[in-house]
Amino acid sequence: MTNDINLTMLQPDDIRAAAARIAPYIRRTPVLEVEGSPFGVSAPLSLKLEFMQHAGSFKARGAFNTLLSQPVPPAGVAAASGGNHGIAVAHAARALGHPARIFVPEISSPAKIAAIRERGAHLVVGGARYADALAACVAYEAESGALPIHAYDAWPTMAGQGTVGLEWEEQAPLDTVLVAVGGGGLIGGIAAWFGGRVRVVGVEPEGSCCLSASLKAGVPIDVTVESIAADSLGARNCGPRVFEVARRHVDRVVLVPDEAIRQAQRRLWHSLRVAAEPGGAAALAALVSGRYVPTPGERVGVLLCGANVSLDTIPV
Amino acid sequence: MTNDINLTMLQPDDIRAAAARIAPYIRRTPVLEVEGSPFGVSAPLSLKLEFMQHAGSFKARGAFNTLLSQPVPPAGVAAASGGNHGIAVAHAARALGHPARIFVPEISSPAKIAAIRERGAHLVVGGARYADALAACVAYEAESGALPIHAYDAWPTMAGQGTVGLEWEEQAPLDTVLVAVGGGGLIGGIAAWFGGRVRVVGVEPEGSCCLSASLKAGVPIDVTVESIAADSLGARNCGPRVFEVARRHVDRVVLVPDEAIRQAQRRLWHSLRVAAEPGGAAALAALVSGRYVPTPGERVGVLLCGANVSLDTIPV
Repeated sequence: MTNDINLTMLQPDDIRAAAARIAPYIRRTPVLEVEGSPFGVSAPLSLKLEFMQHAGSFKARGAFNTLLSQPVPPAGVAAASGGNHGIAVAHAARALGHPARIFVPEISSPAKIAAIRERGAHLVVGGARYADALAACVAYEAESGALPIHAYDAWPTMAGQGTVGLEWEEQAPLDTVLVAVGGGGLIGGIAAWFGGRVRVVGVEPEGSCCLSASLKAGVPIDVTVESIAADSLGARNCGPRVFEVARRHVDRVVLVPDEAIRQAQRRLWHSLRVAAEPGGAAALAALVSGRYVPTPGERVGVLLCGANVSLDTIPV
Repeated sequence: MTNDINLTMLQPDDIRAAAARIAPYIRRTPVLEVEGSPFGVSAPLSLKLEFMQHAGSFKARGAFNTLLSQPVPPAGVAAASGGNHGIAVAHAARALGHPARIFVPEISSPAKIAAIRERGAHLVVGGARYADALAACVAYEAESGALPIHAYDAWPTMAGQGTVGLEWEEQAPLDTVLVAVGGGGLIGGIAAWFGGRVRVVGVEPEGSCCLSASLKAGVPIDVTVESIAADSLGARNCGPRVFEVARRHVDRVVLVPDEAIRQAQRRLWHSLRVAAEPGGAAALAALVSGRYVPTPGERVGVLLCGANVSLDTIPV
């Protein structure tokens, strides 16, 4: 299945090139050094505030990199997305003057659907899960000639997301980074950037864990999806490219229960006045729940990757 | 009225000393460089994310500086506060092991009252406005011997708040900073730090503008208070110390209508996923409303100073 994967298509130089390409269009999100005690650990943490990115998540990086690294046909672009990727593609397409059509599953949150509409994209809601939206999107691409932008399993997407790692390394000393995994484009890009220099630990909801299941199986496999974070981390299959990068460069993947994700959201609001979506708080949930326990002196970074959420759903 | 004011009690060296004193207890809040377009200006802005401070606002700085720069009696500390100062004093007192009694007016938001209670302070709710809470607090101090911590018109408070300016100057190049004004302790400290090297512009709600009214009158005068931001910016009189510092070092004070404050809250959420309280968004409201118009090339910093708010009250 993965014989066609050419890993030379995602090297640190590709991520460096992506960073230069997208720099005029993205925000260099800040890092906050914070005491670990509210989050269940004794050492300080480096929190990367990527939820302040354009379009409310890291996804803008991959969307801009894709659109800026190849010709865009007159039909514009198309994407299937649990929401955040769709918002980002709509944002990037509008910023660069291309039409965009976004396919989202019915599970998507109202906050995400509204954010896509606000950005002027043509929105198609249908199907129960991400995979259904993807199938509809693929059919549309074949018929229209629109440029597909895969939410994770594509090199330009992953190279764009990898710029989070490049930036973070310039901002803080890091031994380990905790990164939430949906389809794995973010962790794939970050792990490719670090190439083992920093320990990259994935965090998946127990009910939506395509990457850990695939790593265990030795090939990308389908999983069922049932989690409070499903609207952003609800991918059924990580795909072959993410899989190949992850098995080389991801140290391990830990699983967290939904209650730990809620708890992480709660603590982010109480301690930091940060309103994160479930997927955006999932990496922190690994610490809150003790599923990842740092060693003494380990400098841990936590990526807060998204906040496209209705404020009335934040647990307080 | 202001004859007893000795301005040598707030020099940059005092602020430098405060910064060293409180460093183990406060967060160095990050700065985000952001495009100005969502906020009605063409040039980039430097946003200081002080709402991520301990206890949800800049007030922790002044509270820690006060408690760490003098002996604390066995009766502990007492403070009157529209809310944020009370939360900060409760936080600092608990961190340093002192009892705290906090007097808040009935106007205080439920989010603020809950935050004071959570921190283990003895809470006294009473009176319609800040001045009523202050009177009750003064009576208690006289009777108990507790150490008073004034919310703004005291040198150790102002020196602590001034550390925001010191920090910000290390983080970003600045020509001008916009700072919300309640009682004026924050702007007093920041203006004393910069001493004219950076233009310090105050922002007050039209319905709660004790500093601009006092500057106009030439002496500190009482004003009436009626604003969406009254629970944090609702001081009736800035007091003589703030007045003396402000008339020397504050460039000007602009007024903003409540609707501009709401609009700033809305744009902060939509563009940055920042949930700020009205007072925390007031400085930005000066740009959103055009009440402060930067000149071309002017490097403007905006202080986002607080987020102690119920999430369901954020306008979206």
